Amino acid sequence: MTDEQCMRRALELAQQAASEGEVPVGAVLTKDSEIIAEGRNRRESGKNALCHAELEAINGGCKALGGWRLWQCTLYVTLEPCPMCAGAIINARIPRLVFGASDAKAGSCGSVVNLFSLPYNHHPQIEQGLLQEECAAVLKQFFKDLRHRREKS
Amino acid sequence: MTDEQCMRRALELAQQAASEGEVPVGAVLTKDSEIIAEGRNRRESGKNALCHAELEAINGGCKALGGWRLWQCTLYVTLEPCPMCAGAIINARIPRLVFGASDAKAGSCGSVVNLFSLPYNHHPQIEQGLLQEECAAVLKQFFKDLRHRREKS
Repeated sequence: MTDEQCMRRALELAQQAASEGEVPVGAVLTKDSEIIAEGRNRRESGKNALCHAELEAINGGCKALGGWRLWQCTLYVTLEPCPMCAGAIINARIPRLVFGASDAKAGSCGSVVNLFSLPYNHHPQIEQGLLQEECAAVLKQFFKDLRHRREKS
Repeated sequence: MTDEQCMRRALELAQQAASEGEVPVGAVLTKDSEIIAEGRNRRESGKNALCHAELEAINGGCKALGGWRLWQCTLYVTLEPCPMCAGAIINARIPRLVFGASDAKAGSCGSVVNLFSLPYNHHPQIEQGLLQEECAAVLKQFFKDLRHRREKS
């Protein structure tokens, strides 16, 4: 699968999250250009602060490969990772991150801070902006709908 | 329970991790001065980059309280949290972190960086150095034993 195909699958997962009432973020993890794990934000339904799309994909990747080092994998995510998820990418030794939209409030791969440029023991490569407009549009529509529902209720 | 009693329980969990061949880090989460969740490092046996003591305790806390906001809780951990765990503390809205030993290599609450001082939407209070020498000694002994076993083999 190409980078764009992987991000389109992450976008589908983000849409699924939106349909479940969750802030729409989706992630896929690949090895040798094949998807080995997926995740979507489930913080509300999971009632758990750890239920971010990236952590779900990394958890699935560790299970699929039977180890904690995902050093041959690429993580695709529709939104710039928060500090927890950027830290998990470092901990799992993922060498390459591709994300779509930037997150000015919590993004930790260039927005609030770039954790990958700090002197930790692993420094993933970042490619940002793939399908950026579509990734941002899913979020924008979700919050627009949310405001609309709140105004009606 | 006092802060020191909570950290002593975290130290017991770190010792348990060491006995399982894991880098000895332990954590407990309290609400109203009572322990509601515990965790220890299980990265090797769990074969998972996410199996840090703090994430296990936060996961248990969300399950115990039935929600993702742990805003009345204190997290005690024997070692300064890494970026993933510091980010999880922010995501879970934990207001207070107490840690023992500092971590020059990955510590993200003052050593490599202090994530809690960056402009995220939550800024936990930090108390560091509680039972610092004992928390550091458990780690030092673990790595000494590990070197010894490797030299013998």
